[in-house]
Amino acid sequence: MSSDNSAEIKWIAVDWGTSRLRVFAMDGRDHPIAEKSSDQGMGGLTPDAFEPALKALVTEWMADSPKPLLACGMVGARQGWIEAAYAATPCPALSVDGLVRAPAADKTFALRILPGLCQMDPADVMRGEETQIAGFLSANKGFEGQLCLPGTHSKWAHLKDNQVTGFRTFMTGELFALLSGQSVLRHSVAAPATTDDASSTFLQGLERARQMNGNLSAELFSIRAKGLLHDFGSGDAFDYLSGLLIGAELVEALAADTRTIALVGSGPLGQRYQAALDAFGVTTTMMNTSDATLAGLTAAYHTLKEAGEWAAI
Amino acid sequence: MSSDNSAEIKWIAVDWGTSRLRVFAMDGRDHPIAEKSSDQGMGGLTPDAFEPALKALVTEWMADSPKPLLACGMVGARQGWIEAAYAATPCPALSVDGLVRAPAADKTFALRILPGLCQMDPADVMRGEETQIAGFLSANKGFEGQLCLPGTHSKWAHLKDNQVTGFRTFMTGELFALLSGQSVLRHSVAAPATTDDASSTFLQGLERARQMNGNLSAELFSIRAKGLLHDFGSGDAFDYLSGLLIGAELVEALAADTRTIALVGSGPLGQRYQAALDAFGVTTTMMNTSDATLAGLTAAYHTLKEAGEWAAI
Repeated sequence: MSSDNSAEIKWIAVDWGTSRLRVFAMDGRDHPIAEKSSDQGMGGLTPDAFEPALKALVTEWMADSPKPLLACGMVGARQGWIEAAYAATPCPALSVDGLVRAPAADKTFALRILPGLCQMDPADVMRGEETQIAGFLSANKGFEGQLCLPGTHSKWAHLKDNQVTGFRTFMTGELFALLSGQSVLRHSVAAPATTDDASSTFLQGLERARQMNGNLSAELFSIRAKGLLHDFGSGDAFDYLSGLLIGAELVEALAADTRTIALVGSGPLGQRYQAALDAFGVTTTMMNTSDATLAGLTAAYHTLKEAGEWAAI
Repeated sequence: MSSDNSAEIKWIAVDWGTSRLRVFAMDGRDHPIAEKSSDQGMGGLTPDAFEPALKALVTEWMADSPKPLLACGMVGARQGWIEAAYAATPCPALSVDGLVRAPAADKTFALRILPGLCQMDPADVMRGEETQIAGFLSANKGFEGQLCLPGTHSKWAHLKDNQVTGFRTFMTGELFALLSGQSVLRHSVAAPATTDDASSTFLQGLERARQMNGNLSAELFSIRAKGLLHDFGSGDAFDYLSGLLIGAELVEALAADTRTIALVGSGPLGQRYQAALDAFGVTTTMMNTSDATLAGLTAAYHTLKEAGEWAAI
């Protein structure tokens, strides 16, 4: 996009997580005119690199005039640009109250950061997913039930009366990476040649986790032993381990509520969760993660605009 | 010990695991006259280094004449010196049938390796612990119940009629190392300044695992969140994570049988398991791991001697 079009851009949406930075040039009709991303995630940056990393992507879009920026994710963590204190559940997914303006060398650079959510007991936190939840709710008004957001750290949020009443985090994705890549199981597990979201070994893993009511203590090493004693290939082991871990997550999450479940996900992981829920007898719809993030930031933009907050820029 | 005493040595006991090599010079009355060890574990050696690594420790003990050597552990794995095929449960902990002689350049070097145990369903394997089990049984004749052997991969063996009727492996120790050292929890967990085998946070972790019936899916990340939201220090997090993981192991292992439990363990880990079992209302006795290994190798030595096997050297 040439700078000639920058006049059409009304604001900039920023999704800044641990490993990626994504920006969207938004027009006045809630549509992204352009999108850019880089690997300048919060996890690898020192504070002096925050402003340059973001400007490298968005300066072109401000050729005619400064534009307000609205961000979600780890950018608002204690180790991020500036801490946007968690809002405590029960509360709406997004609250304008907790918004924080990031200090910038360039005083015309108006970046505002949305706060994450916390739950005091059981202790839990999220940062970024609250925006996806808000986006899902703006597209599914009045939804009540559980929303599952698969990821390295999956979140399951309970939604009622347009509020997040509580949530839990599952380290399923990180456990899978550690067990398959760093533990003794690394000798037994490898990504299968062809990807099948619901292979028979994946379904066997799910079923075993259900039988064990999610207690996997004695199940993990069996993957190694199956490889030594039986004809159990590394691709099967990959799917079985995935089924065991996702199955244990579902056992626990569905114990709280199986009535209405929806997904915010994408790619093979989203498909895998949908297949797993299906195997557990729960039919779900799935909203794309990126769409949900953008819808959440857009909803926050409108709330702020109506509150007259943007005038202060 | 000078080589003048080598005439007293009748045989040499060898405990060769993944990370350590330990040898014992045994007299004719089942007593170790001397003991040596090195870090030449199987995990870091190439096949051409096996014989030199062992000879470096025992040659001095053979000054007057060659001595038979009897070994247990990973030395008999498929990637070890020579594979000693698993005996399948139900079976005695040690069977002379599966004994394998290691090929050596020095034809007078008579090293025999004891086989491990396997269980076909649920698939499981052990190599080294079967010798500890045999040692425990030689000191506790007629024991029936479960024997717990804590470690990186804990084993729980069911013993009846002097046989191992079945067993399960728990990756508890490895999970603790991965979670505390490599996962997002590494920011929250650090070894406490003072070691207490049964700190209140360790007991809280055990209790939480029991409440959750061993399903830890949603519990692990709470350690990170407790650190962010509450006054929960890294030493507390260490003990709590340890309690959660050991607790989940106990829930599963004790579901099978809580009548009679004994431990083969040592050091802080052994104490921690004993305290955990105590918190679960199970009183146990503990045999030292090293003593059990030596007793097991000694029992095997006598069985072989009675069978006339040593004459073949």
